[in-house]
Amino acid sequence: MDKLENIGRLARSSSRILEKASSENKNKALVAAASLLEEKNAIILNANQLDIESAKNMGIQGAMLERLELSDYKIQLMADGLRSLSKLDDPIGKISWLKTQPNGLKIGQKRVPLGVIGMIYESRPNVTVDVFGLCLKTSNSVILRGGKEAIESNKAIVSILKEALKNSDLPSDVLQLIEDTSRESAFALMRLNKYLDVLIPRGGNALIQSVIENSTVPVIETGVGNCHIYVDENADQEMAISILINAKTQRPGVCNAAESLLIHESIAHEFLPKVGKKLNEHKVEIRGDTLVCQILPFAKKAKDEDWGQEYLDLIISVKIVRSIDDAILHINQYGTRHSEAIITNDNDHAQKFLEEIDAAAVYVNASTRFTDGYEFGFGAEMGISTQKLHARGPMGLKELTTIKYIIYGKGQIRL
Amino acid sequence: MDKLENIGRLARSSSRILEKASSENKNKALVAAASLLEEKNAIILNANQLDIESAKNMGIQGAMLERLELSDYKIQLMADGLRSLSKLDDPIGKISWLKTQPNGLKIGQKRVPLGVIGMIYESRPNVTVDVFGLCLKTSNSVILRGGKEAIESNKAIVSILKEALKNSDLPSDVLQLIEDTSRESAFALMRLNKYLDVLIPRGGNALIQSVIENSTVPVIETGVGNCHIYVDENADQEMAISILINAKTQRPGVCNAAESLLIHESIAHEFLPKVGKKLNEHKVEIRGDTLVCQILPFAKKAKDEDWGQEYLDLIISVKIVRSIDDAILHINQYGTRHSEAIITNDNDHAQKFLEEIDAAAVYVNASTRFTDGYEFGFGAEMGISTQKLHARGPMGLKELTTIKYIIYGKGQIRL
Repeated sequence: MDKLENIGRLARSSSRILEKASSENKNKALVAAASLLEEKNAIILNANQLDIESAKNMGIQGAMLERLELSDYKIQLMADGLRSLSKLDDPIGKISWLKTQPNGLKIGQKRVPLGVIGMIYESRPNVTVDVFGLCLKTSNSVILRGGKEAIESNKAIVSILKEALKNSDLPSDVLQLIEDTSRESAFALMRLNKYLDVLIPRGGNALIQSVIENSTVPVIETGVGNCHIYVDENADQEMAISILINAKTQRPGVCNAAESLLIHESIAHEFLPKVGKKLNEHKVEIRGDTLVCQILPFAKKAKDEDWGQEYLDLIISVKIVRSIDDAILHINQYGTRHSEAIITNDNDHAQKFLEEIDAAAVYVNASTRFTDGYEFGFGAEMGISTQKLHARGPMGLKELTTIKYIIYGKGQIRL
Repeated sequence: MDKLENIGRLARSSSRILEKASSENKNKALVAAASLLEEKNAIILNANQLDIESAKNMGIQGAMLERLELSDYKIQLMADGLRSLSKLDDPIGKISWLKTQPNGLKIGQKRVPLGVIGMIYESRPNVTVDVFGLCLKTSNSVILRGGKEAIESNKAIVSILKEALKNSDLPSDVLQLIEDTSRESAFALMRLNKYLDVLIPRGGNALIQSVIENSTVPVIETGVGNCHIYVDENADQEMAISILINAKTQRPGVCNAAESLLIHESIAHEFLPKVGKKLNEHKVEIRGDTLVCQILPFAKKAKDEDWGQEYLDLIISVKIVRSIDDAILHINQYGTRHSEAIITNDNDHAQKFLEEIDAAAVYVNASTRFTDGYEFGFGAEMGISTQKLHARGPMGLKELTTIKYIIYGKGQIRL
């Protein structure tokens, strides 16, 4: 992969230049890129049409085709995203602390870019623009490896973004697209340790697992969410139904949607028929344990593997638990450490749940759908980390940076 | 590896209990462990003697044998280390921020343990105690996989530490030692994603590279340091010599020791004979470029691979550069992103070096030997990270933790 080696080298060397760019310069480039995307939207839509046709020929349809398809409106949203990024605070260069040691050494901690970020992702071409914007804002070079189904759209978008970089006197090499969409190119990227500081996969579980298995570059694991709603014995049941229906049905295909409902046994006979009726109205298939199936005749019997499933569809697993401890044990065993919620009016139970659940975001009396960089007030989002190293939960700008220690001496030596 | 699966399960389940332990309880356990190590030092020394004998039979000698060998004094140092940890601030449970969103959701960020930390390391049995203390203080379970040359010492130490945990009403399962020291056990640990949150290798370059190559568990890369001292054209030359001799010779076997000297060409003819004489006095072998060999007749000719070497020995590579830009380019190409120093009286050059060098710690007019958790005032150290994700530079207590978002609602759903 000589070509990839070259892409890596260009990304690395241009990242040294980008690191020195002023916030003003970067923000101007973001706004320029937004305008150029709008101006040249016909080019993007034409390229996207080629992808759509190939996709249809390959038999792709439904949600996947929708994710791939662009429109004037979607291009407008991408451009707006870049403009809002330009208004956010730039984390790069900030000195978090500077202290003088007893020996007179002044030691400071400074925020710096990660350097070169790799991204492997599927279908949605808007990710190309989002990731470009987040990386430019944080002075990182980025190497993109999108899916083959979106290659024409990605090529058109990247070419426009590179033009905007040039027009703004920034090196266009900070944005690299791998046009080879073979499996081999993805595997080669996973081993490009010499030039990559981090690799972020965004997509389905299979893609993410493959990156974890094969990458020697440090990875930030994102996205898989088997999120639970636990309805405690003294929950406000109307609130519980409203939250569950929102978490399950508002956008069933996203990672912070609920996939499993746990109910305290003392309220099962009262609560299940009510929530079952509502789920039915929303065409949600219920896969329940034995007791659930006894109470709800229309429920299907859950298999063992249902408890670990991220359906991303109008399906939910439902289980009766004997206590909050049982609920916590079940969630810590089957959850993916993404987002988990308890519905309760008992403060001690709320506190216990918050403390003992091992997940990026733990909720009391709210929908898991709020796990999102914008909803959390970060102004941007690179994905949702489900690992514990470096970043956990929604990743904003700060998560795309690292620190460096700077030390000022007057000839100090170690004794 | 059914046994390892069991070790993982025990470490994970006990970590849930440890997470709820009070700071007071953990600190008492640290002090109790310190006393028990002192009380039972004969048991440790006897076990260590077995390791020493096997090591001698295997032909191990010199620095490696020294690292393996324990003494009353070394056990005292380990115990003192645990006592000082007990006096440090506990990061766990701190709420860094809590804010109310426009929709009334209260979102907070809380500091929590990583969970289960894996550690693969070589020879030095004091690492066993240090890592136990750091993990206990931060409420993490730890799975240790030490080298086979130290196995008897490690077993004796771990058994005493587990006794101290029990005496302090903490689960002794939070400390796990893998007694199987085969290569297979190390590889199995590298793939124990189900139970491990992070894996930290400590040891030589070969060990660290093997972990990076083979681990699917997130890794924090530590330790390899090809550190440079760049002597600028207007440096205080006496200071430069003092810093270089300290960085090269005070402890040549450690990762923050200097391995390479870069000199601005305008001072080469004046400075090189002076520094060469001093290096000679300290029995440091010089491997120089062509010009260096012309000026210093006793210097050996450096090969290409010398520029990337971490000698960990009384050897130094020396190169003449034409400018500070050349020096920065060379360091960013051959350095390992550990610690780099410039010696200069020119503020602009100092600033340029601090900004453009890509390393965990960048020094102006001080020895690279200061890159250390204690010297930086962190009160503890888990190793020195040379990667950019999660932790960079000396890792203290905070680097052994992560965050969790806690969200309080009143029935909010996403619109």
